[in-house]
Amino acid sequence: MPPSRYNGGMAQPYNRIFNFSAGPGVLPVEVLEQARDEMMNYGGSGASVAELSHRSKTYEGIIQGAEADIRTLASIPDNYKVLFLQGGASLQFSMLAMNFLGQGQTADYIVTGAWGEKAVEAAQLVGNVNVTWNGKSTNFDRLPDSLGDHSGATYTHFTTNETIQGVEFQSDPDLGNSTICDMSSDIFSRPLDVSKYAMIYAGAQKNMGPAGACLVILRDDMLDRIPNGLGPMLDYRIHAKNGSMYNTPPAYTVYMIGLVIKHLLKNGGLQGAFERNAAKAKLIYDAIDGSGGFYKGHAQRDCRSLMNITFTLPSDELTDTFVKEAKAEGMIELKGHRSVGGCRASTYNSMPHEGCVALSQFMAQFAARNG
Amino acid sequence: MPPSRYNGGMAQPYNRIFNFSAGPGVLPVEVLEQARDEMMNYGGSGASVAELSHRSKTYEGIIQGAEADIRTLASIPDNYKVLFLQGGASLQFSMLAMNFLGQGQTADYIVTGAWGEKAVEAAQLVGNVNVTWNGKSTNFDRLPDSLGDHSGATYTHFTTNETIQGVEFQSDPDLGNSTICDMSSDIFSRPLDVSKYAMIYAGAQKNMGPAGACLVILRDDMLDRIPNGLGPMLDYRIHAKNGSMYNTPPAYTVYMIGLVIKHLLKNGGLQGAFERNAAKAKLIYDAIDGSGGFYKGHAQRDCRSLMNITFTLPSDELTDTFVKEAKAEGMIELKGHRSVGGCRASTYNSMPHEGCVALSQFMAQFAARNG
Repeated sequence: MPPSRYNGGMAQPYNRIFNFSAGPGVLPVEVLEQARDEMMNYGGSGASVAELSHRSKTYEGIIQGAEADIRTLASIPDNYKVLFLQGGASLQFSMLAMNFLGQGQTADYIVTGAWGEKAVEAAQLVGNVNVTWNGKSTNFDRLPDSLGDHSGATYTHFTTNETIQGVEFQSDPDLGNSTICDMSSDIFSRPLDVSKYAMIYAGAQKNMGPAGACLVILRDDMLDRIPNGLGPMLDYRIHAKNGSMYNTPPAYTVYMIGLVIKHLLKNGGLQGAFERNAAKAKLIYDAIDGSGGFYKGHAQRDCRSLMNITFTLPSDELTDTFVKEAKAEGMIELKGHRSVGGCRASTYNSMPHEGCVALSQFMAQFAARNG
Repeated sequence: MPPSRYNGGMAQPYNRIFNFSAGPGVLPVEVLEQARDEMMNYGGSGASVAELSHRSKTYEGIIQGAEADIRTLASIPDNYKVLFLQGGASLQFSMLAMNFLGQGQTADYIVTGAWGEKAVEAAQLVGNVNVTWNGKSTNFDRLPDSLGDHSGATYTHFTTNETIQGVEFQSDPDLGNSTICDMSSDIFSRPLDVSKYAMIYAGAQKNMGPAGACLVILRDDMLDRIPNGLGPMLDYRIHAKNGSMYNTPPAYTVYMIGLVIKHLLKNGGLQGAFERNAAKAKLIYDAIDGSGGFYKGHAQRDCRSLMNITFTLPSDELTDTFVKEAKAEGMIELKGHRSVGGCRASTYNSMPHEGCVALSQFMAQFAARNG
């Protein structure tokens, strides 16, 4: 017996479910269809993209096209490099410190959640880290009241959106000329002023594509700060000089990213994404706020994430029942991280509006039954 | 007008060509078909593998299944870890030295080609390297006559198959208890004695799957040698402890690797692969040797690679014509690396026998026309 659904009874194409995974996350159906249709023979090349030499003209067109589309989507100034690296944001935690945190220097870190903490741990193995704000005492439910003075720092690092706790900077903060930002879980979810950053990095697997690539947007003058002696794969200069092709790039993942970016460009760019994301998130937050206290949002209201919506239920038993019943209704990956408890709905760019309609309706119905 | 083909006039499925790329390389049609068929909804999960949370039971089944199948395929002893990392063999060049080449120690490197040279360059940034043999003076056309004494080395590094020059160790050499080997371009192409190695590593994109994952097979006792203070993504202990899931793995690439390994297991395992590869390579080498000197093999006969077959033609003009005409006949990526010149036919596991038949026939016909 197929489960009843809350999306007006409409079956999803290909019997797909609504996937609220925090990452890897959902991808657009149209992108997956194109990847499927091109799997055996890409554009008449006679081979799958997964088989193309990365030095071939066909593949160069794919990776250079993806970069050009990213530059268009985010209006990236010409004095920034756009790189596709490997190892995710986790390798960047170490790599950015190895490249930019020299002896006798200090880097400022604003820590608003679990990923910020990991960035600090990796950087502390390299040099002096000054944690200028840390939200741990309230379990990372808020952002700092004031951004602080970072004039003495060699760079200042922060995380736009904390995937686990669901707190998000709602716009690009002013943190000085050497701001480095982990945007893994909200990149390209809203308009963005790249010129406020010295470096932006983001794992692909939330808003951009499958896991296995990390996008790095790096201002040219940062390259001059890099010391000699780093391994070639750990030196941004090598990747910049070789256009992300010093070694074989994660070629198929970059192709998928290119398809996702094209899909965003066709659908109103970053402003279009923002409007859709705001409408989707509002459905869920309204279900929380309208539940008479049955659901409690984890993040303070002024920094609620549009990407990862964290909330708790009255008990662990009800949380388990919620997750189980939602799954039976075709909505998966709603269990929250153990450090926050409760539930988390990740509503990345590619989550369909209908998924959030379905979840908000289910939430209301579940609260009425169990409240 | 479709080009005439040398494969008995048979069209390839999906109008595919014979792709002799040195990497990323050709994949089995059956694997691509399965990936295509599962793209929209994997095994009834309601999502593509590219969208699955790496912490989900479904994805855990995929990555653990891939590891188990690799262990079966290569009879990997229980005291070895099997890891899926990122950054390709190129990151391993640095990482293995950071993990295993301590102060006051020396590592021996046997350099039989361009990749061995790169491994040395990366290790020299970390510690003392002793190049015990280097084939550069004859442009890497041979292997050492004797393997040498490596009893003083903290580890001994070599490259089983040099992709660019086409020289290959035909079996697992005896280099002592701390042998580390780059097998990127011939892993799983023939039977293998893992117990002769302390560590084996290989980029996926030649014999195992798409680019974006690096397989590392590491003997447990090596973990005890690793110093503290490395970044978590650069410390094998972290990856070993977390079963390749310290961070989000290159999930889709690992899935594709799993499909390729299952395909190998179904087709006679490593012995079956070896027999097919030997037969394919013989077709091309016979075309070289039977051409009355028109084609000249680059590698000495006793170390000819079964994976990358390098040969030159009488002139650069003829080489260009050869590559162009072969392409018109449905055979691509035959141009050799500039450091060797001439042509290179990469005949990895997934190159169909018919591809080598077609190429050998074309070679004979081309030599007759132009000799």
